[in-house]
Amino acid sequence: MKILFKNANILDVENGKLFLGNVIVTDNIISFVGTTYPNDNFDEVIDCKQNILMPGFVDAHCHSPMTILRGVGADLPLKDWLFDKIIPLENKLTPNDIYWGEKLAILEYLAAGITTVEECYFDNEQIIKALSESGMRARVGFGPSTRKTNKDMQTFLTEQLNMFQKVDHKQIKPCLYIHSIYTSTSDEIENCVYFSAKNNLPMSIHLSETLDEVGNCTVQNDGLTPPQYLESLGFFDRNTLCYHCVHMDKDDLQILADYNSNICTCPSSNIKLASGIAPIYAMQNKGINIAIGTDGVASNNSLDMFKEMFLVSTLAKVSISDASAVKAQDVLKMATKNGSKALGFDCGEIVVGKTADLIIIDIHKPHMYPHSDLLSHLVYSAKSSDVVLTMINGRILYKDGVYTNEDAQLIYNKINEIRERLTK
Amino acid sequence: MKILFKNANILDVENGKLFLGNVIVTDNIISFVGTTYPNDNFDEVIDCKQNILMPGFVDAHCHSPMTILRGVGADLPLKDWLFDKIIPLENKLTPNDIYWGEKLAILEYLAAGITTVEECYFDNEQIIKALSESGMRARVGFGPSTRKTNKDMQTFLTEQLNMFQKVDHKQIKPCLYIHSIYTSTSDEIENCVYFSAKNNLPMSIHLSETLDEVGNCTVQNDGLTPPQYLESLGFFDRNTLCYHCVHMDKDDLQILADYNSNICTCPSSNIKLASGIAPIYAMQNKGINIAIGTDGVASNNSLDMFKEMFLVSTLAKVSISDASAVKAQDVLKMATKNGSKALGFDCGEIVVGKTADLIIIDIHKPHMYPHSDLLSHLVYSAKSSDVVLTMINGRILYKDGVYTNEDAQLIYNKINEIRERLTK
Repeated sequence: MKILFKNANILDVENGKLFLGNVIVTDNIISFVGTTYPNDNFDEVIDCKQNILMPGFVDAHCHSPMTILRGVGADLPLKDWLFDKIIPLENKLTPNDIYWGEKLAILEYLAAGITTVEECYFDNEQIIKALSESGMRARVGFGPSTRKTNKDMQTFLTEQLNMFQKVDHKQIKPCLYIHSIYTSTSDEIENCVYFSAKNNLPMSIHLSETLDEVGNCTVQNDGLTPPQYLESLGFFDRNTLCYHCVHMDKDDLQILADYNSNICTCPSSNIKLASGIAPIYAMQNKGINIAIGTDGVASNNSLDMFKEMFLVSTLAKVSISDASAVKAQDVLKMATKNGSKALGFDCGEIVVGKTADLIIIDIHKPHMYPHSDLLSHLVYSAKSSDVVLTMINGRILYKDGVYTNEDAQLIYNKINEIRERLTK
Repeated sequence: MKILFKNANILDVENGKLFLGNVIVTDNIISFVGTTYPNDNFDEVIDCKQNILMPGFVDAHCHSPMTILRGVGADLPLKDWLFDKIIPLENKLTPNDIYWGEKLAILEYLAAGITTVEECYFDNEQIIKALSESGMRARVGFGPSTRKTNKDMQTFLTEQLNMFQKVDHKQIKPCLYIHSIYTSTSDEIENCVYFSAKNNLPMSIHLSETLDEVGNCTVQNDGLTPPQYLESLGFFDRNTLCYHCVHMDKDDLQILADYNSNICTCPSSNIKLASGIAPIYAMQNKGINIAIGTDGVASNNSLDMFKEMFLVSTLAKVSISDASAVKAQDVLKMATKNGSKALGFDCGEIVVGKTADLIIIDIHKPHMYPHSDLLSHLVYSAKSSDVVLTMINGRILYKDGVYTNEDAQLIYNKINEIRERLTK
């Protein structure tokens, strides 16, 4: 299978520039990038009409099936929202609900150009089923907080890991997901570190998301901040990804930098839940690999990397009073290549040999004119609705509002039914 | 002319709720709102398919023709951006450029459901021409900073005011626009206050946008903050609208409250230019009428009230660490009814007798499911691309991507030509 994308404004995320050219995808791999293209027999030729061709977005942290709970308890204080609204409904969710919630998220991902996601929820069998059917790329987390059984931890983790034997690891990979330091004991965390080392598994965690978390950690652990506490448990000896990292001082960031840990920032969730603004500029200066996540629609409330990119840049600017901080090209790299690196995939760049996860952004809408400064437009003007094509692993899964594999209306009906049942 | 909108989720902005019902527009007025509807001969029946029918958005502060300069000097420090990039290009703009810049803004407004705008630029003859052709509702500002002649102030202001004699004042109104306290002398401001009183004209100004402005004002005016300084010049004795108001303490806000001044907040511009985060929660507590503006695409970089609504709410939440501050229903009112009040129009609400400025929001997209909590979805999930119909003054000007009065391709071509010429 050979597909030619011609006449495209191709995004070079590494150098932060666009150039007019052509891309060939052979099976699931980018086999050619250039200003001309070789004569060949193509199975499909897509004229990009100078629209932007870029790597698909990597949403490096999401609780995807929470689409079911979109809008629940909006505008409540954080604790009332979580304990009075979200958790009681979550306790009613069946495995079948999780499947349909994941399906709705996938509709939203594909329409918004998100091609890879890191999943943090429970009932992973359902999540993996939905992801596999759709053709999405994902890293799926399991760990103490996804355990709904009385089995001992090592048995449970082994069973979970075995679940991934049936899937194509180039598309769906496992990771060890510890929800947070306040939902797991130090014993559980050390247990996970041991399992991670034994099975060469990467690890993810919510870290320093709120001031409460930081304050409680220092009180309970001899003054250790959350990163210092995790360091003492051997967490950072592993390949790690830390979500949020809103309340970190320079010493905390230095720990993450020293151990080559990855950070996933989730700005819309952090401001909507009033958690705070992450120190992105300081993270950059420490040389930390920063990815971007949506965190899921229960808190943010849409799976939209354009919204997140705008916020990563502008919140960084306002928080240090410098309009030149964290530039468009920086956040484009975070949303693609850095995300791919954090999750251990081989996508996120339009370079020969990389996996073909590609999207096309329409530039023929009023908010994208004039056509100078398209790189800046991508971050500060474009909307997720400008995505007109989404390809994952060489397969076109969404084009001009139509899904290749999904029955959108069926999914919508199921979701409305589930939500009605839950709120009865 | 009688149009029936049936089967709509109608937004009641005053009470912050949606209800299923029908709306009749007779000529340019909302003549009926109810859960049933009278038998009648309708010229057009629009089945809303349970989509949201709401008042059009009021963008209460914009430099619309700056669409031409979209993306110029992105990510530069504020002063370099303004003095090295924006102003040199602005000096090259011809009246014809202003006309086409305004036309592009109108395309963006109509597609995004913005039905009314407050204009602050120069070459108003061109702006009024474009607005009149399109059918937009607007308040257009003139004053010291739009004066490009050597004529004395009162003569210039009188000439400018006369320009509005030819237009329908229900659609396009004049206001006296003072750019700021740092671009006009106290004499000029007093001159404007005099002219405003004589001609019963409302007044608008950029106020306390940056810390620099506040600092310089106190140094130069015996310790007076910008609102205190304006109060001493009689500014607030008039009907006034203050843009931005980012750096105001409680005494400053009390001045605006005491004089019933209106505020227009522009959050995306304020964070992208690193100016700061406005104290919206404190403004609400003072009972001030708060409207929302985009400020124009040179600084923000798209004319999108959905982006602004999300930011007004979430920045307020994060800035006072309270996820329950400034709720969805509050910002929906700011973006519609409050804006209409600030500008002195009779729209911004779906109520019998009000002018028919209406938009339809599609709820049949993945990011709008499930269909519970639609009010929250409007602010936290919806995108400007969900607007499928825009009516202004009883006329449908945009429907399903098609403009009634505008030749979009012609406008795009002109804009690209102008920008190429400017940057040569």
